[in-house]
Order: sequence, then C-alpha cells, then structure tokens
Amino acid sequence: MPRFALKIEYHGAPFAGWQRQKDVPSVQGAVEDALCKLESGPHTIAAAGRTDAGVHATAQVAHVDLTRDWDPFRLSEALNYHLKPLPVAILQAERVSDDWHARFSAVERRYLFRLISRRAPVTHDSGLVWQVGHPLDLAAMQAGAQHLLGQHDFTTFRSSICQAESPIKTLNALDIEMRDIPHGQEFCFHVRARSFLHNQVRSFVGTLARVGAGGWQPDDVKTALDAKSRPACGPVCPPQGLYLAGVGYGDDPFSV
Amino acid sequence: MPRFALKIEYHGAPFAGWQRQKDVPSVQGAVEDALCKLESGPHTIAAAGRTDAGVHATAQVAHVDLTRDWDPFRLSEALNYHLKPLPVAILQAERVSDDWHARFSAVERRYLFRLISRRAPVTHDSGLVWQVGHPLDLAAMQAGAQHLLGQHDFTTFRSSICQAESPIKTLNALDIEMRDIPHGQEFCFHVRARSFLHNQVRSFVGTLARVGAGGWQPDDVKTALDAKSRPACGPVCPPQGLYLAGVGYGDDPFSV
Repeated sequence: MPRFALKIEYHGAPFAGWQRQKDVPSVQGAVEDALCKLESGPHTIAAAGRTDAGVHATAQVAHVDLTRDWDPFRLSEALNYHLKPLPVAILQAERVSDDWHARFSAVERRYLFRLISRRAPVTHDSGLVWQVGHPLDLAAMQAGAQHLLGQHDFTTFRSSICQAESPIKTLNALDIEMRDIPHGQEFCFHVRARSFLHNQVRSFVGTLARVGAGGWQPDDVKTALDAKSRPACGPVCPPQGLYLAGVGYGDDPFSV
Repeated sequence: MPRFALKIEYHGAPFAGWQRQKDVPSVQGAVEDALCKLESGPHTIAAAGRTDAGVHATAQVAHVDLTRDWDPFRLSEALNYHLKPLPVAILQAERVSDDWHARFSAVERRYLFRLISRRAPVTHDSGLVWQVGHPLDLAAMQAGAQHLLGQHDFTTFRSSICQAESPIKTLNALDIEMRDIPHGQEFCFHVRARSFLHNQVRSFVGTLARVGAGGWQPDDVKTALDAKSRPACGPVCPPQGLYLAGVGYGDDPFSV
C-alpha cells in the first residue's frame, strides 16, 4: 500500500488534543474521518508529536497508508475538502517509502510559543497567544534560557504524567525574539530538540516568564534544573500560545 | 464635563458593526454599556469611522464626555474590566479639550486589508483575512492601484447605500506589501485618505484582486474608475480582511 506523509496545520481550540479519544473531538480523528471519505477505513495515522488540548500546529507531520496511488496534490485537496469547516488544513502531501515513519524517522521537533505582554486584552489573537499584563525583561529571559541548552536531566520541567522512559533530553535551541506591537511586546520562543518531555516547553516558558517578570533571577533557572524535582519548576503556562512548528527528518519528504 | 478620547481595538465577528442598533450587538453599544458601569448613563460616543459588520479595528478612535475627571490610564483599565469577555479593548485613553471631536477633528483614516493566497484553508487566521486559492500578481495589482491615487469621482467604488454627499474623494496612498507565508503569500493593502465612501476599500481590493488573478489588466482599473458607474466595479470583497488601522489628527491626543 502506498504511504503518504501529510504536513498538517490546525487551530487547537476545538480539540481535546491530537490523539484520537472516545467521545471527544481530536485532530487525529478529524483527519482519519476525512480519509474515510476517500477510501473505506478504518484508517490509523501516526504523528510526529502528540499535542495537548488547545495546542496548535503550523506543521504537524503524520503518515497514512492508502490503497490507491494518489497524486499527492489531489490527495491534499480532497482531504481539505472533507475537513471543512474544521480548522485543520493539509498543507502538503507527499509519497514516501514504506519504511518512512512520521514519528520514528523524525530527528527534531520544533515548537513556537507566543507570549504577549500588554495591559489591554488581546482581541484578534485571543486563543492564539498567552498574555500577561506586566513588562518582561528579554535579556533576563535569554540569560535564563542559556542554562537549559544541551543535555540535561529535565525532571523539573516534566509533567507528572509524562510517559517518557528517561528524563534526559538534549535541548538544541531556545531562542527568544521580541517585537514591539501597539501598546505592548510580543515574545516568540523558538525551541528545538530531538524529542521533548510532556509539558516541557510550557514548563520552560512559564519558568522563563517568571524570570522576565523579575520574580526569579536568571541563575534560579539553573537551580531549578539542578534540583531535578517537579516542584522546583516555575508555573506551567497555558496551552493556547504553543505551536508545533516543524518536524525535522534526515531526508525531508516535503522539500521536493 | 471632561472629554476623553479612546483608542479601541476589536474583532468584528461578533458584532453587527460599530454603530449601535436595536436588538443586535454592536461595538459602540459594548463600549457604551461599559461606560454605564462607571458612571450612570446613557452615554453616547462618537467614532472616527463606522465599520461594517465583521470589519475589525486595530485603532478605532471615539470620544466620550464623563462627569468625573478620570485618570486616563485608570479609565482604560476600568473599561477593559467591564468589556470582558467581549473582544473589544481600550488601548489608550487620553483627556482632550471640549471642542476635540473623534470624527470631525480627524484629518485621515487608515485601513489595512489582509488577503491570503493559498490552496489549503487558513486555520489560525480564519475570520481575520480574505483567502483566495489562486496566485496573485503583486506587480499587476500595484500598477492597477496607481490609477486610484489622488482626487477622483469614486462613484464606481461606492456602495449603492453610501450616504456621503459627494463621490469625490482624495486617495493619499494605496500600498500593497507581499510576504511569503508557508505554502502561500499574504498581501497587505495599506489605504489612506481623509475620508472614504461606503465599501470603498473593499471595492478597491476586490477589483485589484481581479487584476492580480489576471482577469483584468491594470489599465482596466482606470477604465472602471472613468466609467463613474457602480456596475463597472470588480467584486466587492468580504469584510473579514478589513481593519480600521488608524486615524490621523492635526494634534494627535495619543502621542503623549
């Protein structure tokens, strides 16, 4: 059966997360239901990253095995037709080899977290960012982030329900960009690693936002990391600012 | 009574437009209701531009006369508290002189129109942009826009229900910026004039999008303008890509 890779964008708000669950809407379920309109199912798709409820994606990647050897562009168009009006879009479909796997072939996951500092509530970006009402110190957050780079035991930044075998991960990048917006600032956290623990990015951003607000010094991030203890973590920030922004493969099926 | 100028951001989707109407939600009504929580009303506010149903604002301007000499920052905070959870935010409040008028003192209105060209449906920007599924030629649209600059009889680009006394207006700017987005392009139309006819910006963008798609040549815009006839206009595009993005005053009360 021909295997296809799908690059998927979605708004997380209406979903209980990526993963199909009984009796609640999921992104996986939405895509699988659309696939059933093309070829009789059931279909089970595998994704590079399982996003939580309310978390968005600009470039989730999944794969599916189909009976028909679809033209990839026609496959994406047909799926987008059947996904309407849900906020899920197939950005690109590509034919891949039978041993290519969206999850196991991935060598890097990239996340974006959008944090807005402004007094007046956001209107257009509601549900798409995390907002705080106080100023944030970019340089202090950047200094705090330096302590997290590289290979560490990230037990402090790991949800208590995390199912990963080991808390040891290697953080490739945690870059913070700031831009002025009318009457405030937007901070974009760009985070890259081969794989992540559950709630790791939201634990990082919540902790660094505490540094940005002046409640912690940058070196307190190292103290928290070294504690290897969940209670040492700063507050975990809400999901609506988080985006799965890309998945890296040794041989990227989408760079055609 | 002290007069205050308010700079207001809003998402247009839940409203039947700016103007208060009986039995339907309006932005004006939302702000006036919030004012009634601060000082017993009724309050009537005057705005620089009346936006249609579904049209957004990043910087609408209105003024109101109050009894108490509010600290402007506390006034904006109190209004934002009472506006929750509606997607309307007071970005700034300032004390102005008794003869300052949000509408009559304005010397320029600025609009932004966001148009996205991409096959896959937008998800995060749904309701915030107009999307087309075909490519658009930036240079052709820019060439077409040149014909609209300056003083003209804009009857062609005026809604049949427009109440302006004269169809003669002066267009100060119509700049089109393009940026690549994943799997598509975003075109931002920046339009400036002292005042506008009803549906003028949406008529401009709909017409220029037809040029961008190749259905019209850039010079066809001049032919349409010269016709001074509503049926000569291209399609009027939908409201959800339009933003009232700023109001100019000889003495800007917000530049303090």
